[in-house]
Amino acid sequence: MSSEKKPRRPKAETPKGFRDYFGAEVTERAAMLGKIAEVYRAHGFDPLETSAVETVEALGKFLPDVDRPNEGVFAWQDEGGDWLALRYDMTAPLARVAAQFRNDLPSPYRRYTMGPVWRNEKPGPGRFRQFYQCDADTVGAASVAADAEICGMLSDALEAVGIDRGDYIVRVNNRKVLNGVMEVAGVLDPSDSDRFAEERGIVLRAIDKFDKFGEAGVRALMGKGRLDESGDFTKGAGLSDAQADVIMNFVGADKAISRRLLQLEARVRDHGASDVADDLSRARNSSDPDVRSILGIDPIAGWTRNQATIGYLRSIVGESEVGNEGVDELSIIATLLESQGYGPDRIVIDPSVVRGLGYYTGPVFEAELTFEILDEKGRKRSFGSVAGGGRYDDLVKRFTGQEVPATGVSIGVDRLLAALRAKGRIGGTAQGPVVVTVMDRDRMGEYLAMAATLRRAGIRAEVYLGNPKNFGNQLKYADKRASPVAIIQGADEAARGVVQIKDLILGAKIAASASVEEWKAQPAQFEVSTGEMVAKVQEVLARYGVK
Amino acid sequence: MSSEKKPRRPKAETPKGFRDYFGAEVTERAAMLGKIAEVYRAHGFDPLETSAVETVEALGKFLPDVDRPNEGVFAWQDEGGDWLALRYDMTAPLARVAAQFRNDLPSPYRRYTMGPVWRNEKPGPGRFRQFYQCDADTVGAASVAADAEICGMLSDALEAVGIDRGDYIVRVNNRKVLNGVMEVAGVLDPSDSDRFAEERGIVLRAIDKFDKFGEAGVRALMGKGRLDESGDFTKGAGLSDAQADVIMNFVGADKAISRRLLQLEARVRDHGASDVADDLSRARNSSDPDVRSILGIDPIAGWTRNQATIGYLRSIVGESEVGNEGVDELSIIATLLESQGYGPDRIVIDPSVVRGLGYYTGPVFEAELTFEILDEKGRKRSFGSVAGGGRYDDLVKRFTGQEVPATGVSIGVDRLLAALRAKGRIGGTAQGPVVVTVMDRDRMGEYLAMAATLRRAGIRAEVYLGNPKNFGNQLKYADKRASPVAIIQGADEAARGVVQIKDLILGAKIAASASVEEWKAQPAQFEVSTGEMVAKVQEVLARYGVK
Repeated sequence: MSSEKKPRRPKAETPKGFRDYFGAEVTERAAMLGKIAEVYRAHGFDPLETSAVETVEALGKFLPDVDRPNEGVFAWQDEGGDWLALRYDMTAPLARVAAQFRNDLPSPYRRYTMGPVWRNEKPGPGRFRQFYQCDADTVGAASVAADAEICGMLSDALEAVGIDRGDYIVRVNNRKVLNGVMEVAGVLDPSDSDRFAEERGIVLRAIDKFDKFGEAGVRALMGKGRLDESGDFTKGAGLSDAQADVIMNFVGADKAISRRLLQLEARVRDHGASDVADDLSRARNSSDPDVRSILGIDPIAGWTRNQATIGYLRSIVGESEVGNEGVDELSIIATLLESQGYGPDRIVIDPSVVRGLGYYTGPVFEAELTFEILDEKGRKRSFGSVAGGGRYDDLVKRFTGQEVPATGVSIGVDRLLAALRAKGRIGGTAQGPVVVTVMDRDRMGEYLAMAATLRRAGIRAEVYLGNPKNFGNQLKYADKRASPVAIIQGADEAARGVVQIKDLILGAKIAASASVEEWKAQPAQFEVSTGEMVAKVQEVLARYGVK
Repeated sequence: MSSEKKPRRPKAETPKGFRDYFGAEVTERAAMLGKIAEVYRAHGFDPLETSAVETVEALGKFLPDVDRPNEGVFAWQDEGGDWLALRYDMTAPLARVAAQFRNDLPSPYRRYTMGPVWRNEKPGPGRFRQFYQCDADTVGAASVAADAEICGMLSDALEAVGIDRGDYIVRVNNRKVLNGVMEVAGVLDPSDSDRFAEERGIVLRAIDKFDKFGEAGVRALMGKGRLDESGDFTKGAGLSDAQADVIMNFVGADKAISRRLLQLEARVRDHGASDVADDLSRARNSSDPDVRSILGIDPIAGWTRNQATIGYLRSIVGESEVGNEGVDELSIIATLLESQGYGPDRIVIDPSVVRGLGYYTGPVFEAELTFEILDEKGRKRSFGSVAGGGRYDDLVKRFTGQEVPATGVSIGVDRLLAALRAKGRIGGTAQGPVVVTVMDRDRMGEYLAMAATLRRAGIRAEVYLGNPKNFGNQLKYADKRASPVAIIQGADEAARGVVQIKDLILGAKIAASASVEEWKAQPAQFEVSTGEMVAKVQEVLARYGVK
């Protein structure tokens, strides 16, 4: 026995937070992205693929988590001393491209892009440091028609990949409305935009975490602060109760509208009041489940729902100029979408949408999948958000000094793939190739020629290239490959000009359950002449719908 | 005038050596890779997409340039202290995957992959630090049938993307033959593989640069060394003339075979010697242009050319065991390819192929495009290599300690795209979308609806989203987008239920050259009812073959 030290071997592992994608994971994503690209292209968007590596200077401090600018990227110093980094999203590189090529690109410039981005964040279950994004943006269009176009296109894209109408909703809001509400609440001074900036930041992040912290948690963050279960205290914005009420009314506008409709219904029921007939007629078009359950009407509504929301928002922004501008924009977006037939069964104005990103300046939108799935603990929950975006008019200005209006959407590719899997649209067992087995090592040329013949007929086919000595291993291999058919030809068959076709799908069924009668009726292995091989294999494949 | 300092703006630039890809550059590459993937898939290869980031430890010192192991990658240190790096090729990550998932993957494992790789090298004209690779490899197959399969598949892939038969040649050689020649030349000791390793490294790199340095340069490197034009001296391998002769005979085997055939021809011509009839009959099948020009026969030959090469190689490897093993393997590969119908018009045994990579252990192959293009100085030159690969049986062993046979090919995606462009297969002017112009800002909803109507009929269409005030700018935009058609509808047309269709392709032609008669015969702008819009636009698009 030798006590010599073995040389240390490298670990065969991806770095923490990274992973590999195999087989159908790759093709299913490519197919989904291909369908989305078709929708984007049909809308006049052109593809763009930027460099994965940018200068840290060009990326800037626009990281999604506004608390930690300049962190969260993978960066290193070049020989020349420049700091380089992997892109963390597709928007920062687009701003760089729009500035770098501003004299060559058409204006407005509509572009789509799909590819990996990298985040130097703590990995967790299902949370990776490299993931795909699929974005579409319009740079150089100040009109909210550009925002409306993106919302409609997002709806089309979701349906194109296989999300049924009714299984998703695109929600639209406007940062300007929120700013108007902030003004009314006294935490935004139109004459001094820096004043109360810290308070607004806290309010914004609190609203965005409504789902996580609940109304009480958000209220605590708006006031003195919030103590979480672990005893950690997060400082609040220091708003008075009256100030917080203004903001909570906005965030809960959806609920407030429902409450108003319920009151109307009660009045009609109790007093037969004819003066509320118009309001009630609007109520009948509501998509709110509470209203629906009382009135017993269909949840798919006309555009009245949006108009009711817009009217309510108008009332809470009061005299705020920016607030009214925001409401006007939402009204135009609703009208533009209506004119193309996008009803509130697909796209709806919803004040609860905030989006965490600090750089949004106008309309913001979010696509949510509304069907239920079971979470890891077996509880039903709504699938949730798969895409989001909005208007960001200041990103290109960083480079050029000139304001360039821009708006866009980003689809969370992995989330959407997971949704398609949950709906059974993708992820069935992928069938493998036909495997030509090797009975006789010396006739490898003939086996290769058989596989080539099958391929010429459009059939996916390969020869077993492992050690052919143990025939059982060849069939185990075919099984692992999920092959539908194995071709077998020994010296005897070759001399007689025939091959054996083994139907592996039927074979597996018979092995699992079938009676002797079924076996006899439909043999899992049969002999055909070499000339008939292609036609007979096609017959078997057609039986199982294999392409 | 204020003397206030403006905040420094970031530069809108990609880092040196990186670039962006726009529009058709993205779609043409995707289309080409899609066709290659189809060929790979048909051969039973499965897609794999590894993480772009690997541990430096896992990447190992297998950088293509054997002079500088461990350099040339973009690397940084993780918070945990681990060194991470961007992958520099697709082979090192495959070796890691094959080791990491060895219990789950089928064996043999055939996989293909396509994506960017990164090299921290000095950028130059047309030489970028991020570029695409498209690889197919078989891991776990010791049989040279796997190598033959890859060569045949490479040939199929080139034809699938649009390289005609006759415009390319796949050349096959074997490192073992080269080792045999090294043994005969006395620079390889079968009982001590480390001996002469430095000399062999120099010889290998010298042969690989045959095209660049010429025979004299390669001879100098095998001997004392080579002085280049700039006065730099590169140390040679120190071989004697007799040793160098052995190796040069091998490298020049192709030329040597031609010479032998020419001698035979001379004997027949001068002496009518019947004893060389067999050899001459083989000569008649040669694809060598010199032989062809003397004998006046077709250059597309039978497999005799390969058999002649193999016979010649057998003679120069002498008694070397590894050399004879290599010749045997080449003979099997030639036979397996022949049995599938791959003649020397597609794949040929060629001793001049070496491949620079140090890790190859058996067959090596290279695809060369044989048609001529004009270089930047207007000189004709052969397009050259677009793909290469070979057998590397030791890469997985680094991780597991167990030898795992593997072979594969890598296609240079950018080179192949350049070739398709040179052949006019891709790169025509891409037609843009139909542009619906905006005459009346208040009817934006109707314009958006028109574009949606066109899209539902499968026509790529968009609304002009810039400032609509100046109509001339809208047409300039359509021109920049290469739009085939513009739709125009003012208030007057809307009232009458009509739209104007402007044929921008014809319009441009008329503006450039047409006489008044032509203009009258075929108006570039005409009016149709709103209901006819789709049909009439389709008519115009069909005229120009726009999809």
